[in-house]
Amino acid sequence: MALYIPNASPIPLEEAQRLVLATVRPLPLASIPLSRAYGYCLADPVLSDHNVPMYDRSTVDGYALRAEDVKWASRSTPVKLNTIEEIPAGHIPEKQIAPGMASRIMTGAPIPKGADAVVKVEETEIGEDEGRSSVWIYRSVTAGESILRKGADVEEGTIILPEGTFIGPVEAGLLSTFGVGVVPVYDKPKVGILSTGSELLPVDQQISPGKHRDSNGVMLAGQVRAAGGDPVYLGIVQDHPEELEKRITEALQQVDVLVTSGGVSMGDYDFLGNTFEKIGAKVVFWKTLIRPGMPALFGTWQDKPIFALAGNPASSYVNAWLYLLPAIRRMCGRRNPLPQRLTGICDEPIAMMPMPHTRFLRGFAYISSSGELRVKIARKQASGILSSFLESNCLVRVPGEKGYAAGERVEMDLIGTLGESVCP
Amino acid sequence: MALYIPNASPIPLEEAQRLVLATVRPLPLASIPLSRAYGYCLADPVLSDHNVPMYDRSTVDGYALRAEDVKWASRSTPVKLNTIEEIPAGHIPEKQIAPGMASRIMTGAPIPKGADAVVKVEETEIGEDEGRSSVWIYRSVTAGESILRKGADVEEGTIILPEGTFIGPVEAGLLSTFGVGVVPVYDKPKVGILSTGSELLPVDQQISPGKHRDSNGVMLAGQVRAAGGDPVYLGIVQDHPEELEKRITEALQQVDVLVTSGGVSMGDYDFLGNTFEKIGAKVVFWKTLIRPGMPALFGTWQDKPIFALAGNPASSYVNAWLYLLPAIRRMCGRRNPLPQRLTGICDEPIAMMPMPHTRFLRGFAYISSSGELRVKIARKQASGILSSFLESNCLVRVPGEKGYAAGERVEMDLIGTLGESVCP
Repeated sequence: MALYIPNASPIPLEEAQRLVLATVRPLPLASIPLSRAYGYCLADPVLSDHNVPMYDRSTVDGYALRAEDVKWASRSTPVKLNTIEEIPAGHIPEKQIAPGMASRIMTGAPIPKGADAVVKVEETEIGEDEGRSSVWIYRSVTAGESILRKGADVEEGTIILPEGTFIGPVEAGLLSTFGVGVVPVYDKPKVGILSTGSELLPVDQQISPGKHRDSNGVMLAGQVRAAGGDPVYLGIVQDHPEELEKRITEALQQVDVLVTSGGVSMGDYDFLGNTFEKIGAKVVFWKTLIRPGMPALFGTWQDKPIFALAGNPASSYVNAWLYLLPAIRRMCGRRNPLPQRLTGICDEPIAMMPMPHTRFLRGFAYISSSGELRVKIARKQASGILSSFLESNCLVRVPGEKGYAAGERVEMDLIGTLGESVCP
Repeated sequence: MALYIPNASPIPLEEAQRLVLATVRPLPLASIPLSRAYGYCLADPVLSDHNVPMYDRSTVDGYALRAEDVKWASRSTPVKLNTIEEIPAGHIPEKQIAPGMASRIMTGAPIPKGADAVVKVEETEIGEDEGRSSVWIYRSVTAGESILRKGADVEEGTIILPEGTFIGPVEAGLLSTFGVGVVPVYDKPKVGILSTGSELLPVDQQISPGKHRDSNGVMLAGQVRAAGGDPVYLGIVQDHPEELEKRITEALQQVDVLVTSGGVSMGDYDFLGNTFEKIGAKVVFWKTLIRPGMPALFGTWQDKPIFALAGNPASSYVNAWLYLLPAIRRMCGRRNPLPQRLTGICDEPIAMMPMPHTRFLRGFAYISSSGELRVKIARKQASGILSSFLESNCLVRVPGEKGYAAGERVEMDLIGTLGESVCP
């Protein structure tokens, strides 16, 4: 029997996020080839089973030698050394460098015994000698120069990538280095997205009076994808209880998470609330103390998380940002699923009526020429307005009790990147 | 005949980036369903062909009424109005609101004629009357309250998404709003990645003396994917001229861009340089004034861009960041393909020998509690070291002429996000 709480009081944001993260858990493990592992999270730590590099290695093309031998070398007083070997990358040197000797060495090749430095080929010239190979050295070097020491990159026996690491380009490179060709990862959740509302039309239909095309569906799909999930847009359901129950039941069989938008506010609640009750879902919370998006239902059905988000586009976006995406990141195995808050400085005053809600204002965050993170609040903030997200890259958090004066510090979540946004 | 320039002088970074962007161009257009358009760039501007919303619309569930009628309404002095209609979302109101009347209205439904405000259902109570529907209103409202005006989100006839717009969640939502179910985009370049070097082993092989596994291949694939390209890892080629020529020729038939790593520095140049000459490629530049990664060849073969990057992992990463990824973004149709520079403040002094090169130091950028963008330079900077990228999220640019004192302003490129990086 469902816990039916249509009149439950709204709970604070932090409590709601805590409940979401306490409810969802990482998905079962999968093993995927390294070439497809980008964007997944590691399900096991990766230990370095050898030093990187495994041997002292040359970082340049040149001559391996004893620094002592070329202490006085310069353009005007070059030093001649006998060359005894050529060491291409991938080969092991066979000869030892004794005083007066050098070996030609390529980038990445192991340093021969006896040598303690490498001089770049640009600072040398091949000598002419009677039958013996030799080289003129035009520069002195210090011991260790142009040598990458064994273990300097990664030492053997360290946890180089802990469990939960997001696999980006560098992580993929290190997995390859340590021979992890099949990567243990957490699976990506399949997230079903249903848009509810009799006013909604699919993208390929002509608009008619009182109707508009569904924008939340693809928007939520994009948010889910950016957070690492695998979105499945399931289309539109009209406000008919039987239809809603049928579609939600079908959806829950197919996906790991179900998200709906619309039909969750005061007047509409009965639609979704009754449906969840009927199918035996458990409601964890229904309203949270945020704006936009106060009504936002979170529950579970057979351990599958269900998010029923407000239908206004900005409400839906903010609900997803605060509750759905952290859940997806946690299911993907990420260590820090919550968005990180940054402190910035507001360009203009933010006037606010005192209320118990935390308000989320769209804004454009930028780094000033003096190195400050500053934010300009977007002009259009109504929850029915989507377009102002186009020139926004952050959500400024305004706690219920107050507004801010210009120049005061504010907290924000970055929803876009600082680097790629267009300065207004 | 190829322009063979093994001894050409290194050119400045900005000149090299200019040459790359002047050479590559966006790929041909593709038409893809909106559900798959996330991450592509628009090849045509999108014009709003109607107002959003199309009609004045209620932003709450409640009662549409005349603000004048409830001027004195409060909890202690409620005002009773006759309810004449119920307007669900998706329906057109049929009745006009005259003085003393109200209509039940759902979120998103059109405002009926005569009404100029909506009171939330929470501030009302259904009245009891002799056969007539009525409602008690417990609060006064100002004219316009809880109404989203026609065109308030997007006005008809504006360019809402210009050509070159990157399609993220909000852009996808707006494409849906305007009925763009099949989206004109620039295709994503197929980027072939070849790792060269006889010291390299594939990920699934045991390491042997003098050899190590290729890490650049999957690392570059990850960078390419993050920039919007479609990477194809083509494996390892040994340092054999015939094999190299064969593999490069094969690769160039299959892909839109070819990237190699390794075999491009002084001693190795002949391998790649001769190969490019033999196949009739045109070399645009070979070395640029940056560190790490001074040798980095850029050229074309039958208009297909070729990047031959240095083999050291940090060199390869920085080369790709500065030259390859901007080329990919441009080919994807992005308006601003170059990484944006941010100004931050360095935590510690940066000591540097004067040299003509622009140095790129790995660092961790963070926002301090006072709202400053600050940066801590990573300890390990050798070009052979990859692991220090794990705790870095930026590349600090140090121009050739100088270092910095602690607290001085420095310029940096963000290579990770501020929000998601782990504070050290």
